Amino acid sequence: MDTDALATRLLDGDRRALSRAITLVESARADHRAAAVKLLARVADPARQALRIGLSGTPGVGKSTFVDAFGTRLTGQGLRVAVLAVDPSSTRSGGSILGDKTRMDRLARDPAAFIRPSPSQTELGGVARRSREAIALCEAAGFDAVIVETVGVGQSETMVARMTDLFVLLLAPGGGDELQGVKRGIMETADLILINKADGALTAQAQATRADYAGALRLLRRRDGDPDGFPKALAVSAVSGDGLDTAWKEMQVLAAHRRDTGHWDRTRAAQNRHWFEDAVRQGVMRHLGSDPATRDAMDALGRAVADGRTPPGAAAEQMLATLLGSARDRAAGGHGTG
Amino acid sequence: MDTDALATRLLDGDRRALSRAITLVESARADHRAAAVKLLARVADPARQALRIGLSGTPGVGKSTFVDAFGTRLTGQGLRVAVLAVDPSSTRSGGSILGDKTRMDRLARDPAAFIRPSPSQTELGGVARRSREAIALCEAAGFDAVIVETVGVGQSETMVARMTDLFVLLLAPGGGDELQGVKRGIMETADLILINKADGALTAQAQATRADYAGALRLLRRRDGDPDGFPKALAVSAVSGDGLDTAWKEMQVLAAHRRDTGHWDRTRAAQNRHWFEDAVRQGVMRHLGSDPATRDAMDALGRAVADGRTPPGAAAEQMLATLLGSARDRAAGGHGTG
Repeated sequence: MDTDALATRLLDGDRRALSRAITLVESARADHRAAAVKLLARVADPARQALRIGLSGTPGVGKSTFVDAFGTRLTGQGLRVAVLAVDPSSTRSGGSILGDKTRMDRLARDPAAFIRPSPSQTELGGVARRSREAIALCEAAGFDAVIVETVGVGQSETMVARMTDLFVLLLAPGGGDELQGVKRGIMETADLILINKADGALTAQAQATRADYAGALRLLRRRDGDPDGFPKALAVSAVSGDGLDTAWKEMQVLAAHRRDTGHWDRTRAAQNRHWFEDAVRQGVMRHLGSDPATRDAMDALGRAVADGRTPPGAAAEQMLATLLGSARDRAAGGHGTG
Repeated sequence: MDTDALATRLLDGDRRALSRAITLVESARADHRAAAVKLLARVADPARQALRIGLSGTPGVGKSTFVDAFGTRLTGQGLRVAVLAVDPSSTRSGGSILGDKTRMDRLARDPAAFIRPSPSQTELGGVARRSREAIALCEAAGFDAVIVETVGVGQSETMVARMTDLFVLLLAPGGGDELQGVKRGIMETADLILINKADGALTAQAQATRADYAGALRLLRRRDGDPDGFPKALAVSAVSGDGLDTAWKEMQVLAAHRRDTGHWDRTRAAQNRHWFEDAVRQGVMRHLGSDPATRDAMDALGRAVADGRTPPGAAAEQMLATLLGSARDRAAGGHGTG
């Protein structure tokens, strides 16, 4: 099917078209990439915005069960929900995501929902582009909420936070050492910290954990333009459903407030600009790296710099002279860069 | 004085030579830059390592008084201490640092100490390089500890954390809303959180604040290879001196542990590599930006991307085609990049 036909069906909200479109943006083949870029440009529409929810949580916290229950609440309100999984560790993606999908069986059978596993991928930059473009496709397909779930490997939360409107951290109840479970940087990325499993025997412990995190969050400066009380910590139960409506209400309050203050548009603009400049930087570096001599020079200098033999500045000067020498000549020669 | 003579005197620990060397690395003049790169390469010695201490704290917390008291403790133990101020906001640097220096009058008169204000600077990238190189010069001059103080504007803590061995956050006692003073990302960057002004009427409040932060830090996962109990929160008083020895002891414990586990070397290697790659990236982007047509294209595409009209990927493809088109031809043409 050609790009225009795919775009038309995508804009109509066709889930199979969305699936095919995402497969296209995930492909590394040059012709696929060209078609993907064309498709994304074709369906780009600033007016179609979903609420992009980043969701992170350590394994065992019940992320899939939460997404299944939470997503079903949203579709129950007539909203269309897309779930994208981001797992930079290719080794894990296969298994974990397969598991995730089977654990989201209500949502998986829901015609108002779309669940997409993470593409096997090792290079984070690649994951970032593919995830970002998959989100854009879900928005083009008219989904109201896009939940971007990450397993929280390495830098993936930061990456997901940079492509979502609000970030939710899902935690399990815990005490003492178990509490040392929040990876650095995440607590301060989160807009909402949800303590899951607030049901049965764990209810009290979940409430206590919630209070601990609420206290910790109070030590952080409020984000510019956020309403009082954010970031918040809430106790929820994906099993009993307790707190899910409150969590959704809080997300809407925060989103509405950010829309009103202009924070929403500013953030999206900054995110788009970031990904554009990031893609240019990566493209340039990739181009440099594609020249074996350049790559070898970068590696050799990188090693010399790492063990302190060569100062970073001197190594960079050497590298830049090699890299840009001919480019400078070219510019001087007046051939331009166009 | 030529570079070799300057290098020799610097390696002898001459403070005036250090001052001149830092002025050299701070200069934007091309010939100065060339000399600076030569000098840094000349004095690079992996065996000369100071303990690099990043220090951040909001204005009014008593940072300068703390550095004066803390630094004097170290020189009192026969250590040589350098203090570098990093202030990315050129508008503030002049005033604030001048003030700082006068508030560090004991240390300023101490022959075993070296205090260097931040260069007026607007561009963070430039501050990073200059600060990093100034640290390297202090190490070459044989200082035992280099305290890199930042006023904590924007990304400056992250930057300072990336060029130091351990990071200290200095806070004032506070309760309730005053506690919301920690800028996001910093609490999780800190190895030690010191609650200053634990003296007189504020002693009890400082201890309570310390407990609050200790509780919050317990919610964070411990850094790989760090000993139990880190990051820690301590109460200190720059005025009475209480807690300063403990703070120094804790820093030494952490540093020793990181040395033993190899974490120290790995971190320094990663930092050096980061700054090398960062310098190459910046150099390449700067080169691209130096071509007016390129800069205009980046700006125009950046605006189109920001308001959602153009997808980041498509914009990047356009930009890369423009940028690398001739480079690709050149490579294909076999001229290489050397």
